Amino acid sequence: MLNKKQGQQSIVYSKPPVLVGTAAIGGPMEGQGRLADYFHYIMQDNLHGEDSWEKCESFMIEWVAQHAAQGLPGGIAAADCVLAGDLLNQLMATHFAMRSLNRPFIGLYGACSTMAESMILGGCLIDGGFFQQVIACASSHHDAAERQYRFPTELGVQRSPSTQWTVTGAGAAAIAAAGTGPRLTAATFGKVVDMGIKDPNQMGSAMAPAAVDTLYQHLQDLNRQPGYYDRIYTGDLGSIGKALVSQLMQEKGIDITANYEDCGCLIYHAEQDTHAGASGCASSAVAFCGYIYQMLKQQTFRRILLIGTGSLHSTTSYQQKESIPCIAHAIAVEI
Amino acid sequence: MLNKKQGQQSIVYSKPPVLVGTAAIGGPMEGQGRLADYFHYIMQDNLHGEDSWEKCESFMIEWVAQHAAQGLPGGIAAADCVLAGDLLNQLMATHFAMRSLNRPFIGLYGACSTMAESMILGGCLIDGGFFQQVIACASSHHDAAERQYRFPTELGVQRSPSTQWTVTGAGAAAIAAAGTGPRLTAATFGKVVDMGIKDPNQMGSAMAPAAVDTLYQHLQDLNRQPGYYDRIYTGDLGSIGKALVSQLMQEKGIDITANYEDCGCLIYHAEQDTHAGASGCASSAVAFCGYIYQMLKQQTFRRILLIGTGSLHSTTSYQQKESIPCIAHAIAVEI
Repeated sequence: MLNKKQGQQSIVYSKPPVLVGTAAIGGPMEGQGRLADYFHYIMQDNLHGEDSWEKCESFMIEWVAQHAAQGLPGGIAAADCVLAGDLLNQLMATHFAMRSLNRPFIGLYGACSTMAESMILGGCLIDGGFFQQVIACASSHHDAAERQYRFPTELGVQRSPSTQWTVTGAGAAAIAAAGTGPRLTAATFGKVVDMGIKDPNQMGSAMAPAAVDTLYQHLQDLNRQPGYYDRIYTGDLGSIGKALVSQLMQEKGIDITANYEDCGCLIYHAEQDTHAGASGCASSAVAFCGYIYQMLKQQTFRRILLIGTGSLHSTTSYQQKESIPCIAHAIAVEI
Repeated sequence: MLNKKQGQQSIVYSKPPVLVGTAAIGGPMEGQGRLADYFHYIMQDNLHGEDSWEKCESFMIEWVAQHAAQGLPGGIAAADCVLAGDLLNQLMATHFAMRSLNRPFIGLYGACSTMAESMILGGCLIDGGFFQQVIACASSHHDAAERQYRFPTELGVQRSPSTQWTVTGAGAAAIAAAGTGPRLTAATFGKVVDMGIKDPNQMGSAMAPAAVDTLYQHLQDLNRQPGYYDRIYTGDLGSIGKALVSQLMQEKGIDITANYEDCGCLIYHAEQDTHAGASGCASSAVAFCGYIYQMLKQQTFRRILLIGTGSLHSTTSYQQKESIPCIAHAIAVEI
């Protein structure tokens, strides 16, 4: 019998679950970005008729969950459960969306690693024989997140050059035991890594060691070289964190520069003035559920590794002068 | 082959995972309560030498995870992963504890349903063949939670009679593929239920319909009567929510009064002046990992159902005049 646990932190799926459909939604800023063509829906403004940013985020979650579920026979009503999370305190946006979706719900908090975390666990529930079809989902909203973590956007506070821009968007993936499409084949669960960085404007640098820890362990556990994958994507390290990952891997004797990319560097054009790039749960969620999924469907890429990266600080931890714990979870998707 | 999915929202484990050990920790208030004899450790004050309540909560998580892991060959270092969550924004207490535990980590947010959620998913990862042994954990801290959700305790704000008292404590369970002890046999994943209650001082009433929804579905899905269980426990509904659950079940034609109890009604003595009872992730976590686990080990009870109940509101949702979404997840444990 196949040993599903591999090495220290990794698993392989014995009957690889199928990504039968995805959906990505974005705001106006994302709609002017580099991945605009791969969104399934672009909102014309950051409220979309709702009376708060938080409710707009809930709308996005509902929209992508329902749209991705069109890949399931029976649609959202046939989903055995939804696994989801967001950045807001107590997952406010996700919970409000779940009121109307009316499906069994598993709440996750992995900060910006949530899209990877939800797909990995969703795959486990299917490959483990518990469910036939689930929805995995993650979201963030620029204005809601800025107000909660930093300053209300109305203040127009000047941002430091190392900051990233929280993506307004959501992604959802419909994962099923059977069907056609790219498959989840292996995953690595990350540990919490904290290298002592305390500046929440340096999240790329804070998260890079967690990404390296998980990527290195993934390659060790599965006895793979980086070249096994057509592309290795981190979630939202931005330009500074991305450079650091390449450098730290080089120091471990592994060159990933040929096929390594960061979702946070893919979403906006340089002239959109986001400084170090994109961040937020939606960074990897929209990049994966929009662009990367299409690349897999077209077989432009046949094997990718998505490493969701999460900065796990809170305003309270920052005020208490604590450093930033980070995590990264990796999911391999192949067609 | 056994169909692990049962009915609409439930699962049965094919090789029921074993609860090889648990640990419960509490603060001084809990140490004077009704379950004092069942705690593995009682702190003498709510800081325990730490310089913040949040760090004290992290200490509790570390302590119970390590103590529960003594039931595993190899201890905490041999745990394949830890599944955990708490009530604080961005799971601050849990993430800080995970820095030192150094295990693969899966972050959950189910508010006060987290202990049930973590055991259910931990059981799925084991029964699904991915892991051999995991730690499931949940915590809350009275002062940290009051400051975040309501008022700093130093203010001495008068509490309304319907409020509950957030438990200072943590519980952890070591779940393994083999060994001796009570076993996880079945589970029901809850839906988000919101009956329109907006008063965060009425959390028992807000959560009761979610508990009823999950309990009713559990009995339907598995074709069971309440008498199948020696005890049915809800997580933290308190006296008001508990009465409401009995009444709502009666309206559905099911009498649960003979064997139904609420963990929130078990923890404090009436003269401790907690008003409607206990609440918080630690309510069901310490009641289960302390008292209920011992009752199972002694075979005083041979079958119990734990229904973790979570109120999913945030201060932002309250300020935006939203009602309180709630959830309940049920886990059956038998020996």
